Amino acid sequence: MKPLKLAIAGLGTVGAGVVHSLAERRAEIGERAGCKFEIVMVSARDQKKKRGCNLEGIPWTADAVSLASCDADVIVELIGGEEGSAYALCKGALAAKKHVVTANKALLATHGAELAALAEANGVALRFEAAAAGGIPIVKALRESFIAHGVHAVRGILNGTCNYILTQMEATGKDFAEVLAEAQRLGFAEADPELDVGGGDTAHKLAVLSSLAFGVKPDLKHMSVQGIRHITYEDINFAREFGYRIKLLGIARQTPMGLDQRVQPAMVKLGTPLADVEGAFNAVVADCGAAGPFFFEGRGAGRDPTASAVIADLVDIARGSSGSAFGIPAASLKDVKPPHPESRRSAFYLRFQVLDEPGVLAEIARKLADSHVSIESMIQRGRAPGEPVSIVMITHDAPEPNVARALKTIAASDKVLGDPNMIPMEAG
Amino acid sequence: MKPLKLAIAGLGTVGAGVVHSLAERRAEIGERAGCKFEIVMVSARDQKKKRGCNLEGIPWTADAVSLASCDADVIVELIGGEEGSAYALCKGALAAKKHVVTANKALLATHGAELAALAEANGVALRFEAAAAGGIPIVKALRESFIAHGVHAVRGILNGTCNYILTQMEATGKDFAEVLAEAQRLGFAEADPELDVGGGDTAHKLAVLSSLAFGVKPDLKHMSVQGIRHITYEDINFAREFGYRIKLLGIARQTPMGLDQRVQPAMVKLGTPLADVEGAFNAVVADCGAAGPFFFEGRGAGRDPTASAVIADLVDIARGSSGSAFGIPAASLKDVKPPHPESRRSAFYLRFQVLDEPGVLAEIARKLADSHVSIESMIQRGRAPGEPVSIVMITHDAPEPNVARALKTIAASDKVLGDPNMIPMEAG
Repeated sequence: MKPLKLAIAGLGTVGAGVVHSLAERRAEIGERAGCKFEIVMVSARDQKKKRGCNLEGIPWTADAVSLASCDADVIVELIGGEEGSAYALCKGALAAKKHVVTANKALLATHGAELAALAEANGVALRFEAAAAGGIPIVKALRESFIAHGVHAVRGILNGTCNYILTQMEATGKDFAEVLAEAQRLGFAEADPELDVGGGDTAHKLAVLSSLAFGVKPDLKHMSVQGIRHITYEDINFAREFGYRIKLLGIARQTPMGLDQRVQPAMVKLGTPLADVEGAFNAVVADCGAAGPFFFEGRGAGRDPTASAVIADLVDIARGSSGSAFGIPAASLKDVKPPHPESRRSAFYLRFQVLDEPGVLAEIARKLADSHVSIESMIQRGRAPGEPVSIVMITHDAPEPNVARALKTIAASDKVLGDPNMIPMEAG
Repeated sequence: MKPLKLAIAGLGTVGAGVVHSLAERRAEIGERAGCKFEIVMVSARDQKKKRGCNLEGIPWTADAVSLASCDADVIVELIGGEEGSAYALCKGALAAKKHVVTANKALLATHGAELAALAEANGVALRFEAAAAGGIPIVKALRESFIAHGVHAVRGILNGTCNYILTQMEATGKDFAEVLAEAQRLGFAEADPELDVGGGDTAHKLAVLSSLAFGVKPDLKHMSVQGIRHITYEDINFAREFGYRIKLLGIARQTPMGLDQRVQPAMVKLGTPLADVEGAFNAVVADCGAAGPFFFEGRGAGRDPTASAVIADLVDIARGSSGSAFGIPAASLKDVKPPHPESRRSAFYLRFQVLDEPGVLAEIARKLADSHVSIESMIQRGRAPGEPVSIVMITHDAPEPNVARALKTIAASDKVLGDPNMIPMEAG
């Protein structure tokens, strides 16, 4: 059988890992794929950089976009970024009837529907197992496995950096800034951490998973996104007292009011699978009605897990796997119809920093009651008359806007210091 | 596009679930599959039985094997059993160039390699996502996803009945027989429970997963199989004291000495994913070297999870998914080369029922030392001079035959009552 010819754009950690694995396990991968893979060209900026893989004899170009017109059957796009050369290369490659495998969630979240349509129009595959949850085959599972009962919600820990930071905060008692600085020093967080800790990376991945699960166009516009900067060690500690752990979750849920997509720190009950996901691991729950919840956990980033996902896509293409990028024809992908914000409900964890004076708690309770938010449990730890102390509460299920409005009036009190913290309770 | 014509053999819980889901979500499944499904014939013994699905207008035959020559493109075999009409139907259908989807692990464990070869020779698909771990897409993952780094070990809780019984024993403090009787009354265990509690069902599923993971012919002969009848509440309780939980695991592990396949109760460390799998849930860990362990959990049996897996296979076939049944060409499937039993090593939990007399512990310790088995920790609870008490130990890593030999000499002592219990420690 003729070899499948690959061109690889981007030779960072993942690109080098793909080249390395394809060489290292050439025979085994060839046996599964039913053909050999041949790398016919690679592209990266610096040809001299050491990359931990053997590139000898493979033609090199600094112009990634030009790969679209090279002699390859499949373009592997590992450049990253939602615009620029990644976007130009993928469009060019699909238009030139080359299959595309990409790990680029930002690109898919932004241009996924357009690229899927282009792939279909040209009769080639667009595959992206590596774009969400690294080596966990959740893209394939959502595309191909949970069809009989549909997916009601997909919920996941999709950013290893955030999960590492939250795990370390709990383990060490240190606050966000200190743990982030350490994570950066150890290489677990980027020099510019905003895309991770601000929730944007989780949002990109959630948009991809949501599209696969619900047959919608990937859509960042109708997604509420919150990161983890405002989470303190105190929150983590109180969460544990209430029997919860704080996790940054991406959640896409079909509700009677619309498709609710959000990225936010959430209180996850201890003992449920998502609560137990530690360190840089990723995990996804697919709620599939009577077929039950399915839980997947594994490494969400790094050279080998990501290369594993890329190579699984390549083997699928080698085997002739066809089918739409997001599971249904691109023309059938619907626009996301988000629920009206007023319709959102949840129970919430609330933390107030207040002056320890008589009547403060009564004032908070009254303002919550005025907004029809009732309190399920409360902790006020320590006494320090006239000094700042924390009051934390868990509310009963309540409309989110009511809680937000109550918090605004509470924050306006001169007994209340800074902004109250509000974290929804989530199933694990 | 023309519909894909199905014939369904076996209308028990799962068969009825497949018929029900195909009707219930006709449009959604059709959109994912790219075509409609049409059931052209069904077969079961009793045409009058109520089955909770609409069979109106679908031709019926009592002769399952005759479906092989009906007008269907795909035969869905849900009869069960490793021989008889299930085997005859699958062979006949493949020979007649019809795709086969089956949930029959006993059949695949016994005749899997032959059926895979027959499917390939006839250019049709043999698919069996439902044959292991119910709705969890682990068959697809092992066949298609973990290729770049290979699978080093696959370990799983594959029998919901056993996991339910062990969970209930721990929760209620009741012993095996009592919990089994209750489970039978509630429909969680069969009237004849031997295939479940004896480990045979787990063995069938493990043979299938092992074949997919390691490219070997499914093989029950070179598998050591032990069930859970000998596990007592006392064992479960001691396990917890040591920080473990007892789970019936199917384990297939590539070792330098060969492919080690076993089904046995094992001590799994609390806090690891497999230890936390409760009730009738199933779970699988795939150890994939540097790509990391992947963990999957979900419902392993029942109408909806199993129908979900069957329908995923049907959609794959509708999309033209080709490729070998076990991931590599049937002719390339190797024979299992088991490690020599003498090469097996593990740490073990040991429980001895002994007369509470001076010198008994010393005698046990000496006999273990004589076999070069050293003790890591020990509990002797309660005193009852001259009466039976339990001594439990955890050994250091030791050759299994040494431990077994030591136990034989210890059991021969007149101070030791009954057979000692020996449970290996496993990673979770």
